[in-house]
Amino acid sequence: MVVKVAINGYGTIGKRVADAVTKQDDMEIVGVTKTRPTIEADLAIQKGYPLYAVAEEHEQGFLDAGIPITRGTLLALLQKADIVIDGSPGKKGAANKPIYEKAGVKAIWQGGEKDSLVETSFNALTNYNKAWGKRFVRVVSCNTTGLARTLYPVQQKFGIKAAYVTMVRRGADPRESKKGPINAITPVLKVPSHHGPDAQTVIDGLNIFSLAVAVPTTIMHLHCNTVELEDKNATTEDVLALWDATPRIKFVEGGKGIVSTAQVMELARDLNRERADFNEIIVWKDAVTVQDGVLYYYQAIHQESDVVPENIDCIRAMCELEPDNMKSIEKTNRALGIE
Amino acid sequence: MVVKVAINGYGTIGKRVADAVTKQDDMEIVGVTKTRPTIEADLAIQKGYPLYAVAEEHEQGFLDAGIPITRGTLLALLQKADIVIDGSPGKKGAANKPIYEKAGVKAIWQGGEKDSLVETSFNALTNYNKAWGKRFVRVVSCNTTGLARTLYPVQQKFGIKAAYVTMVRRGADPRESKKGPINAITPVLKVPSHHGPDAQTVIDGLNIFSLAVAVPTTIMHLHCNTVELEDKNATTEDVLALWDATPRIKFVEGGKGIVSTAQVMELARDLNRERADFNEIIVWKDAVTVQDGVLYYYQAIHQESDVVPENIDCIRAMCELEPDNMKSIEKTNRALGIE
Repeated sequence: MVVKVAINGYGTIGKRVADAVTKQDDMEIVGVTKTRPTIEADLAIQKGYPLYAVAEEHEQGFLDAGIPITRGTLLALLQKADIVIDGSPGKKGAANKPIYEKAGVKAIWQGGEKDSLVETSFNALTNYNKAWGKRFVRVVSCNTTGLARTLYPVQQKFGIKAAYVTMVRRGADPRESKKGPINAITPVLKVPSHHGPDAQTVIDGLNIFSLAVAVPTTIMHLHCNTVELEDKNATTEDVLALWDATPRIKFVEGGKGIVSTAQVMELARDLNRERADFNEIIVWKDAVTVQDGVLYYYQAIHQESDVVPENIDCIRAMCELEPDNMKSIEKTNRALGIE
Repeated sequence: MVVKVAINGYGTIGKRVADAVTKQDDMEIVGVTKTRPTIEADLAIQKGYPLYAVAEEHEQGFLDAGIPITRGTLLALLQKADIVIDGSPGKKGAANKPIYEKAGVKAIWQGGEKDSLVETSFNALTNYNKAWGKRFVRVVSCNTTGLARTLYPVQQKFGIKAAYVTMVRRGADPRESKKGPINAITPVLKVPSHHGPDAQTVIDGLNIFSLAVAVPTTIMHLHCNTVELEDKNATTEDVLALWDATPRIKFVEGGKGIVSTAQVMELARDLNRERADFNEIIVWKDAVTVQDGVLYYYQAIHQESDVVPENIDCIRAMCELEPDNMKSIEKTNRALGIE
């Protein structure tokens, strides 16, 4: 069976998921949507994706720009699809639910939507089975995905009494030129930040406290995490071995010159990763420290791409293509060339 | 008695402490030093501070630039002083200790030097008495000063089981144009960061865990703090009342438009603070939250100036001018126009 996937919103996440779907042997793209004839519309056509206007009022814009859209809008596209990836900007995707319900398709939303919109939130490592056969699921945000990948194995192996996390967030994505801050640090004044409760939607029983700030950088988020372990005998080496055996975690070392997110992204370019993305969570190996039962670590999150393989695994769970989460993760990783 | 104060190193801290000393009625500046004839040398002369070259090899530079230095170098200046403020760049001040010993003056170093260099580290609120009559003292760093001012009263009143702090540090001062990062987040890979142990030099028995990153901003540090309290009955209102009664802590509110460090510094400009500095620690009042015995808060630190009043109080303790720390703090604050 080859699952037919529609992308509603060919933007930062949508375009990446489209390319990732194309690289799998058990799913294919039947079309993508946009509202406006931007350069990304040109690129979708060049890649051979059938391009649909989201609604009728958007069609003339594409025709005026000479972009050869497939007629019929989102509704026509959904008739051809088994499942739709909602790539709407944060908080805008919820409004599409009645459309997906009426069209009879399954749907995956991104982390900008609420957990209450869907049957379950999703992370491939922590709760793949909960999405099995489900119709409406949300892949958690880039930050929550990062927390899930590193905290879940620690919780399972050593137990977590409490995790204290501070998220230092990029102010804007690289493609943006109108957002800030450009010389300030902006705290998230709603305390605790939503990231802690969000992590609890994919990790049962996690005791987590979160604070967050936005800073003037475009390329990655960075998490500063302090974790009180249940197992007071755990060592730094134990944690390193655990994460080394966990998929989608990649170590870097300050000792090799990777002293900031700048050198992390340079490595993605040197490795010729697609779009210079890092789908893995980046952990500074030489900073991982367990002292008196407390684990300290820094991790960097490539906000545009870490959820992309999660969307692929989520399709596989919802469409009942592969019952074993680790097999799905491995299959996805192999197809995408990630660790 | 009017204490005679020398400033060795008229830079970011030195120039501010010089002006602050001048505003007190129990101390005066007898001279300041520099190594090079920069614009700050011109400004020192304009302010009427006797300017000395640090060493003989520096004198010709000033003479060539037509800057009227007082002849005789640092050694001559120290003969006129009771106490010297070492304003050397971080880690450079320790080398001056033999010079100060030989000259028979008391000396205050800044937070860039080690605790082991001196008889005691200093914060006016937490351990003023320890500096009483001492000869060699270190005022702790801007970040440690910030932690001391907010954590110490909480420790005294409610007890602290553990404080988990993440310091989001400015990458460079406003005057700098060669340092970074400009589009990256740089974690301090030595874990835990030195800030925790440094806070313990001025707060006895504080259980603190610290992590730190540098980010692309020039205007302030920001601390994201999560504190487990001993007293599980403490409320948000209790903590706000405590800090409201503590000197050198200033509340700001996101609800009034102060949503980042940018608006904090704009307020310092609007209040016409000298050099647009904020000597106080800035706490976001509407983010202070106590929940299930855990206190969360954000505080911003004006890295160039929060230690300035501490240097004044430190002079007063070391020179036995005022035995009561709260009276010294009040006197300093009144003279400087701070809260």
